[in-house]
Amino acid sequence: MSARKTMVGNINEDVLSFTVGKDPQLDAVLLEWDCIGTAAHVSMLQHVPLATPLFTATDRDGVVSELLDIMRQGRQGRFRITRRDQDVHLAVERALTRKLGTLGKRVHTGRSRNDQVAVDLRLYAKNELLGLLSDVADLATALLGFARRHRAWPMVGRTHLQPGMPSTVDLWASAYAEGLLDDTITLRSAYVVNDRCPLGSAASYGVPLPIDRELSCKLLGFAEPIHNVLHAGQARGKCESVILNALSQVMLTLSRLSEDLILYAMPEFGYFKLPAEMCTGSSIMPQKKNPDVLELIRAKVARVLGDSVAVSGILKGLPGGYNRDLQEAKEPFLESLRTTRACVRIMRTMIDALKADRKALEAGFRPDVFAADRALELVAEGASFRDAYDQVRQTLDDLETRDSHAALGLRTHLGAGTGLDLGLLSGKTKDVRSFARLATKRYHNAIAKLMGVPYPELEA
Amino acid sequence: MSARKTMVGNINEDVLSFTVGKDPQLDAVLLEWDCIGTAAHVSMLQHVPLATPLFTATDRDGVVSELLDIMRQGRQGRFRITRRDQDVHLAVERALTRKLGTLGKRVHTGRSRNDQVAVDLRLYAKNELLGLLSDVADLATALLGFARRHRAWPMVGRTHLQPGMPSTVDLWASAYAEGLLDDTITLRSAYVVNDRCPLGSAASYGVPLPIDRELSCKLLGFAEPIHNVLHAGQARGKCESVILNALSQVMLTLSRLSEDLILYAMPEFGYFKLPAEMCTGSSIMPQKKNPDVLELIRAKVARVLGDSVAVSGILKGLPGGYNRDLQEAKEPFLESLRTTRACVRIMRTMIDALKADRKALEAGFRPDVFAADRALELVAEGASFRDAYDQVRQTLDDLETRDSHAALGLRTHLGAGTGLDLGLLSGKTKDVRSFARLATKRYHNAIAKLMGVPYPELEA
Amino acid sequence: MSARKTMVGNINEDVLSFTVGKDPQLDAVLLEWDCIGTAAHVSMLQHVPLATPLFTATDRDGVVSELLDIMRQGRQGRFRITRRDQDVHLAVERALTRKLGTLGKRVHTGRSRNDQVAVDLRLYAKNELLGLLSDVADLATALLGFARRHRAWPMVGRTHLQPGMPSTVDLWASAYAEGLLDDTITLRSAYVVNDRCPLGSAASYGVPLPIDRELSCKLLGFAEPIHNVLHAGQARGKCESVILNALSQVMLTLSRLSEDLILYAMPEFGYFKLPAEMCTGSSIMPQKKNPDVLELIRAKVARVLGDSVAVSGILKGLPGGYNRDLQEAKEPFLESLRTTRACVRIMRTMIDALKADRKALEAGFRPDVFAADRALELVAEGASFRDAYDQVRQTLDDLETRDSHAALGLRTHLGAGTGLDLGLLSGKTKDVRSFARLATKRYHNAIAKLMGVPYPELEA
Amino acid sequence: MSARKTMVGNINEDVLSFTVGKDPQLDAVLLEWDCIGTAAHVSMLQHVPLATPLFTATDRDGVVSELLDIMRQGRQGRFRITRRDQDVHLAVERALTRKLGTLGKRVHTGRSRNDQVAVDLRLYAKNELLGLLSDVADLATALLGFARRHRAWPMVGRTHLQPGMPSTVDLWASAYAEGLLDDTITLRSAYVVNDRCPLGSAASYGVPLPIDRELSCKLLGFAEPIHNVLHAGQARGKCESVILNALSQVMLTLSRLSEDLILYAMPEFGYFKLPAEMCTGSSIMPQKKNPDVLELIRAKVARVLGDSVAVSGILKGLPGGYNRDLQEAKEPFLESLRTTRACVRIMRTMIDALKADRKALEAGFRPDVFAADRALELVAEGASFRDAYDQVRQTLDDLETRDSHAALGLRTHLGAGTGLDLGLLSGKTKDVRSFARLATKRYHNAIAKLMGVPYPELEA
Repeated sequence: MSARKTMVGNINEDVLSFTVGKDPQLDAVLLEWDCIGTAAHVSMLQHVPLATPLFTATDRDGVVSELLDIMRQGRQGRFRITRRDQDVHLAVERALTRKLGTLGKRVHTGRSRNDQVAVDLRLYAKNELLGLLSDVADLATALLGFARRHRAWPMVGRTHLQPGMPSTVDLWASAYAEGLLDDTITLRSAYVVNDRCPLGSAASYGVPLPIDRELSCKLLGFAEPIHNVLHAGQARGKCESVILNALSQVMLTLSRLSEDLILYAMPEFGYFKLPAEMCTGSSIMPQKKNPDVLELIRAKVARVLGDSVAVSGILKGLPGGYNRDLQEAKEPFLESLRTTRACVRIMRTMIDALKADRKALEAGFRPDVFAADRALELVAEGASFRDAYDQVRQTLDDLETRDSHAALGLRTHLGAGTGLDLGLLSGKTKDVRSFARLATKRYHNAIAKLMGVPYPELEA
Repeated sequence: MSARKTMVGNINEDVLSFTVGKDPQLDAVLLEWDCIGTAAHVSMLQHVPLATPLFTATDRDGVVSELLDIMRQGRQGRFRITRRDQDVHLAVERALTRKLGTLGKRVHTGRSRNDQVAVDLRLYAKNELLGLLSDVADLATALLGFARRHRAWPMVGRTHLQPGMPSTVDLWASAYAEGLLDDTITLRSAYVVNDRCPLGSAASYGVPLPIDRELSCKLLGFAEPIHNVLHAGQARGKCESVILNALSQVMLTLSRLSEDLILYAMPEFGYFKLPAEMCTGSSIMPQKKNPDVLELIRAKVARVLGDSVAVSGILKGLPGGYNRDLQEAKEPFLESLRTTRACVRIMRTMIDALKADRKALEAGFRPDVFAADRALELVAEGASFRDAYDQVRQTLDDLETRDSHAALGLRTHLGAGTGLDLGLLSGKTKDVRSFARLATKRYHNAIAKLMGVPYPELEA
Repeated sequence: MSARKTMVGNINEDVLSFTVGKDPQLDAVLLEWDCIGTAAHVSMLQHVPLATPLFTATDRDGVVSELLDIMRQGRQGRFRITRRDQDVHLAVERALTRKLGTLGKRVHTGRSRNDQVAVDLRLYAKNELLGLLSDVADLATALLGFARRHRAWPMVGRTHLQPGMPSTVDLWASAYAEGLLDDTITLRSAYVVNDRCPLGSAASYGVPLPIDRELSCKLLGFAEPIHNVLHAGQARGKCESVILNALSQVMLTLSRLSEDLILYAMPEFGYFKLPAEMCTGSSIMPQKKNPDVLELIRAKVARVLGDSVAVSGILKGLPGGYNRDLQEAKEPFLESLRTTRACVRIMRTMIDALKADRKALEAGFRPDVFAADRALELVAEGASFRDAYDQVRQTLDDLETRDSHAALGLRTHLGAGTGLDLGLLSGKTKDVRSFARLATKRYHNAIAKLMGVPYPELEA
Repeated sequence: MSARKTMVGNINEDVLSFTVGKDPQLDAVLLEWDCIGTAAHVSMLQHVPLATPLFTATDRDGVVSELLDIMRQGRQGRFRITRRDQDVHLAVERALTRKLGTLGKRVHTGRSRNDQVAVDLRLYAKNELLGLLSDVADLATALLGFARRHRAWPMVGRTHLQPGMPSTVDLWASAYAEGLLDDTITLRSAYVVNDRCPLGSAASYGVPLPIDRELSCKLLGFAEPIHNVLHAGQARGKCESVILNALSQVMLTLSRLSEDLILYAMPEFGYFKLPAEMCTGSSIMPQKKNPDVLELIRAKVARVLGDSVAVSGILKGLPGGYNRDLQEAKEPFLESLRTTRACVRIMRTMIDALKADRKALEAGFRPDVFAADRALELVAEGASFRDAYDQVRQTLDDLETRDSHAALGLRTHLGAGTGLDLGLLSGKTKDVRSFARLATKRYHNAIAKLMGVPYPELEA
C-alpha cells in the first residue's frame, strides 16, 4: 500500500476524506466499465510499436483475464472499493497488482485517472442511455396502448384547467406518447455527443508514446475518438451536462403527465383510477389512497433539474484543462440517470394498470364545452369568426349538451378527433426501440470481442 | 376597438397591464413571423373544401398583400404594438381589419392565439438557430485560424491551473473549436425538435373544420407537422427549453474560453494580448485595460442558465393543455437567443484580433513541466510506470528545461502534438456552415414562394 | 464628450454596445438614488480636512441644487440616459458638468463607478424592500380579512390532494397569511444585510484622502458602513443574491396560493369564484373565464428563481475584487424586485374581491373525510391508535357524513378549529407594517435633510 | 409486521422501493431527533385532560427510557433502519412496540408522520445551524488571525483581475472574514425561521384531542409554536429552502475565497503557499501539488446551489396541504447542511496552515499600480479629478514604483489601509460565537430536562 500513499501524496486523513468524498460508493456502478476500459487500453498498448513492447500478448491476456474475474466479483457483490482505494480506478489497479505484481502496475502506462474516469462515465452512460431509450419507448407504447383501449372516449379538453373543448382520452394519452418521442430526439443527440472515445488524452495533453487512439476507440465500440486531446479532457462535465439536459426533458414530460393523473384521479373528477397496489395510505387517515408515486415523480423532476444546475454551475467559468471540480459532477450525473430510468419504468407500470371511468368522463361535459363549436358553425354559415364569437358569448345559457362523439367526428383533420393516427406514433416508437436494440447489440458485441466472453453474460 | 374589449373580457386596467406584461415590446421581433404564419394560414384556408369557401383566391391575395405591407412597415420601424393591442397577433389582426374590414377579422378562423404564438416562436427560432449555427462555425473558424497562426507555439498545459505538461497554443485554441463543434450537435438536434409545425392545433384540441395541416406545414417550410394537436399545444415551452439547453452548452464553452483569456492576459502571464479597442478603462485608475467583454460573456452564461432554469421551472408540473404560464417563457427564450448570438459574434471579433506573445509563452516553461515526460522515458527504458513516477518525484530538482518543441514532437498520436489535425476540424466546421447555409436557403425560398416576393429582401 | 471617450477608452461601437447593454434603460429607476448618493458624497467631501478644501459649502449647495433639478426632471420623464452616457452615473455627471463646469467634474473625486452603483442599488433596494414589506403585510391582512369573513366555513382538508380531514376556509386563508409572515422574517433579514453603506470603498481599495465614511453613511440613513473596503466591493452581487433569495420565498408562497385558487375555482370544485374583472377570455372559446393572473404569478415564481440562479451563478467562483460580471446581476435583481411587488399587490386585489361558495364547499364533504375522527373516538374509548385505525379502515362504508361544524369544534387546540387565533396573526401583521412605516419615515427624513427639501415630495 | 402492512397499504415491492427511496439511509441522522420528538409528544400526551388518560406518568417514563436506549444504540451504530421500516419514524415505533407492546403503538396517538418528520428536521437543523454558526465564526477568526499575522503586507489590489491599486494581505483576508459575518446574518435569520415547533399539526388539520402544542414546543426548546396547523404542514420544504438559501450564501463566499487561493498559489504569483498535507498529486505528473480541496469547495458551491434549486423547484406551484413531493426535499437539505459544514471546517484548516510569501507579494507591485494615487495627488494640488486622470493616463511610463507601505499609509479612512480595524471584526465574530454557544446550551438543557439525562452525553 505504500505505493498508493506515495502516489497521492502525504495528505492528512481529513483531507483525504474530503477529497475522496463519495467516490467509493458512487464508483460501484463504474466497476465493470473501468475493467472494460482498462482491457481496451492494454489491448492497445500491446500494439504500440516500441523496441521493448509495453505489453506482450501474454501480458495482455493475463490482465484481461484478471479484469474479467474482477467484473464477476463485482456482479456477485464481492468487490469492495474502500476509502483507502479512493476510487474504482485505484481499486482495480490494486487488485491487479495483488494478483499480477509489476504487470498490474503497468496498466496505468500512458493514461491518467482523468482519462479513465472520462471513459468509464461514457461507457456507462452509453449503456444507460440505450436502456433509457428503450424504457421511454416502452412507456410511449404503454400510453399508445391506453389510447387504443380508450379510443374516442370523451374527455373534456381544458385550457387554463377550465373546460374548453370536446376532446378524448386517446388524444390525451397519445399527446404524452408523442411528447416522449420528441424527447428521444434530444436523448439520441446526447447519445451521439457521448458516443466518442476520450481515451488517450491522459491528463489532457497526450503522452509521449505512439499510442493508437483509433484502436482504443474501436475496441470499445465508440463511433469515433474525440480528436483534440485537450478537448477530450475539457469535454468531461460538458458531456454529462448535455445528458442531464436531455434527462430533464424526459422528466418534464413525466411531471406534466403525473400532474394530470394526480388531478384527474381526485374523487371530484374520477376520470382515472390509479392501481391500488401503487397507492399508499396515511398513518392517520384510514380512508386515504394517495398517489405517492406520481407526486414523487413530479418532485424528482426538480431533483434532476437541480442536478443539471449543479453540473452546469460547476462548469461555468472553469479554467481550461482538468480541474478537480469535475469530480463533483459525478454524483448528480449518476443519480439523475438512475432516477430518470426509475421514473420512466414505474410510470409505465402505472399506465399499464391505469383504468379510466367512462361515466365520470362523460359527466365532465357540460354545454359550454361546445361554445367554440357553435361559433364555428356560425362561421360555416357565413359569419366572421369575431362576430360569431360575440354572438355565442352573449347566449351561453342557450347552449345545449351535444353528443360528444359527434363533436369529435367533426375534427377530421390531421392529429385531432378522427384524424388522430395512433399507428403513425406507434411506428415512430418502434423506430426508437429498434435503434436502441441495434446499438446495444453492436456495443455489447464489441465488448464481447474485447473481453473474449459473451456480453453481458460474461460466461460462455 | 370594442371588438377587442369584448374579445378579451372586461378586465381592469391593472390586470390588463399585469397580464400583457412585456409582450408589446418582446413581440417586435415576432412581427415578421406572425405575418408569415398568418399568410400560410389564410393560404391554407383558401383550400378548405367547404360549400362557401372560407377564403377565395382574391381574399387570400388581399390579405397577403397587406401582410407584406405590415412586414415592410415593421422593417422601417413604423409598426407599433401597443398595450391595448396586447400582443403582436392582435396588433396584426387589428391592422388588417382597419384596411380590409370583415376580411381582416376572418383571418383568425380556425386558429387561436396559442396556435399563432407557437408557430411564430418556431419560425423565429428556426431562423435564429440557423444564424447561430453559422455564427458558431465562424467562431470555430476563427479559433482554428488562430491555431494555424500559432502552430506549435509553446504553451504550458495545465491541470488544476498548475503547470503540468508541455503543450501548445494550437492545441489550446483548437480544443475550443472542437468544443464548439460538439455544441453544434446539440444545437442541430434542437433545430430538429423545433422544425415542426404546430399550426392547426388551435387551442390544442383542433377545430371542427377540415383544415389541411400538412399544407400549412409545407407552406412554412417546416419538416413535418406535429401530429397530435394536444401535443402541439403542450410542446410549447418544451421546445424553448430544449433550445435554451442547447444555448447553455454554447455559452458554457464560451465561459471557459473567456476565463482562459482573462487569466492569461493578466500581466503575470502575458500569454495573450487582448485587442485594445475591446478593452475598457477604469473611472478611477488611469492605467487599466480591462477585459470587460470577456467578463460579461462569463456572466451572461449564468444569465442563460438562469433563463433555462426559469423555463424548465415554468413547465415543471404544469397540468396538460395550455396554461397562461407559458407566456412567461417568451422573454427568457428570446433574450437568451439574442444573448448567445451576441456573445458568439463578439468572441469571434476578439479571437480575430487576439495576439499571442511567444516570449511570454516560452517563459512559462519551467523544468518540472517535463516531469511526466521523464517518467515515461524511464518506462520506455523498462520501468513500471509507478516506479518511474516515484523516481522522478524524488528527484524533481534534477530536471532540466527541455526543448519544448522536441517534447511536443514526441506526442505523435492522434489529437496531440504532431498528431493534431486542424484540417479535420476545419472540415467539420465547413459541414456545419453548409448545413446552415442550405437550410436557410430552403427556408427562405419557402417564405418567398408563400409571400410572392424574394425573401429576405421583400422587394423584387 | 471627448472627456467621456478618453475616460472609457477608445473602444469600438459594437464593443460599447455589448458592454453598455441595457444599462441606459435599467438605470432609469436608479436616477433618483444616484443623485442622492452623489449629494451625500459631496456633502461629505465638504468636510474632508485638506488645506485646499475639495468642496466649499457653496460648491456643495450648488451641486445639490442641480441634483434636485435632475431628480425633478427624472420624475417628469425629462431626463434621458443615452447609450453614449453608458449609465446613470455618467449621465448625471455629464448633466452636472454641463451646468456647473469644472465643479461638475469634481463630484467624482474619491469614488469610483463601482462605489456609485453599489450605493445606488442599496438605496433603491432599501426603499423597495420597505415597500414590499408593506405590500406583504397588506396581502396578509387581506387573507386574514377573507378568513374572518368566512370564519368556520367548511372546506375539506386535503393531503396528496385527496380529501383527508374536516377543515375550514379560515384555516386555509390564514395559513397563507402566516406563511407570508414567515417570509417577512427573511425579507427583514435581507433588509438588514442591505442596510449598510458601501460608499468610500472606491474601486475596493479605498482612497488616499481622509474621507469620512461614517458621515456618508449617516447622511444616507444607513445603519452602519460596511467596514472593510474590499468587502464593500465584494458585497456587491452578494447583497442582491440575499435579496433575491428572500423574494423567492415570497414568490413560493404566492405560487402555492395561486395553485390552490386555480384548482378550487375549477367548476368541478367551485369553492372560490375569481373576480370577473381579473379573468380573461379565450380568442376561440367564447365561454372561458381564465385565471390568467394566477397562472402568471405561478410562472413568475420560476422567473424569480431563474433570476436568483443567474445571480448566484455570476458570483460562484468569481475572483476577489471587482469584476465586470457584476453588471449582469443588475437586471435580474431589478426585475425580480419589480415582479415580486407587482405579484403581491395584484394578489391582494384578487383576495379582496374573492368570493367563496358555501354550498360548493359543503358539497365537498363526504363521509370518509371523518375517518380519522372516528378512529380517534375509538382511541378516546381506549383503543390503541393502530387498532382503531385498522378497524375504521375495514368499515369505511359504515361512515356517515357528520356535522362539519361539530367536527371542527372538537379541534380545540392551538392553531386548529376553535383554537385558531386570527387576532394573533393580525397582531404580527401589524408589527410588520409598523416596522416598514417607521423605517421608511426615518429613511425619507434622512434624505429630506440631506437634500434640503421634503422627501419624497421634493417640493416644499 | 402485519400492522405495518395494513398501515401502508398493499403496495407492491417495486413501488415500495420507489417510494421509500433513500429514507432508510438518510434518516440515520434523524434517529436521535425522532426519539427526542417522540419523548416530547408522549410527555405532552400525559397531560391531555381526558377521562381516561392517554399516557400515565409511568407510561411516559417507560417510553422515554426505551427512547433513550434507542438513542444509545444509534450512537453505537447498533440501530438499523430497514427498507421494510420505510423510515426512522416507523423503525422507532416498531422498536418501541417490540419492547413495550400496545404502549409502543400508542405513541402515534394524535400525530402523523408528516408531523414527525417536520419536527425531526427542525430539531436536527437547529443543532446543525448552531454548529455551522460556530464553524463560520472559527473560520472568520482564522482569517482575522491570518490578517493579523500579515498586517500591512503588500498585496496588489485588483479589479477585473488586473493590478489596480496598492493594497494589503490583511485587507484581503479580513474582507472574507467580514463577508462571512454578513452571511451569519442570513444564517441567524434562517435559524429564527427554523426555531418554531410544528408539532401538533398532525396531517395539517389538527386533531380532535385537546393536545397542548405550547407544552410540546416548550419541552423541545423551540422559541414558539407555528400557530396555524395547516401552515405548520405547509412550512415544510419552505423552512428547508430558507436554510439552503442561507447555506448558499456561505458557500458563495467560500467559492470566491477558494478562487483567490487557487489563483494566487499558482507559481506565476506565488503569493500563497498551500499546506502540502492539503494538496494532492497527479497519477501521471510527478511534480504536481494540486489545490484539490479548494477546487472541490468551489464545485460544491454549485452542488449546494443545485440542491437549493431542487427544493424550490419542488415547492413551486405545489397545491396546499401535504404532498409527498416534500420527501424529495430531504436529501438535498441534509446533504447541503453536511457539505457546507465540511467545507467551512476544512477551509479553516487551510487558512490556519496557509503561508504568505512576502517577496512574491512585493514583486507584484509595478509602477502603474500607483496611477490612481498619482491622480489623486494632482487633485490634492487643485486639479479636477477628470483632468488629473487624463494627465496621468497620458504619462503612465513616467510613473515610478513607490513605497507600498507609504501608499497604504495614505489610506487613513475607515476600513482601508491604516483605518482597517481588525478588532471591530473580531468583536463581531465573538458575538456570533457567543450567540451559538448560548443557544446551544439552552437547547441542550431543554433536551436534557426532557430526557432526564445530561445532553449531549446521554449518560450521567
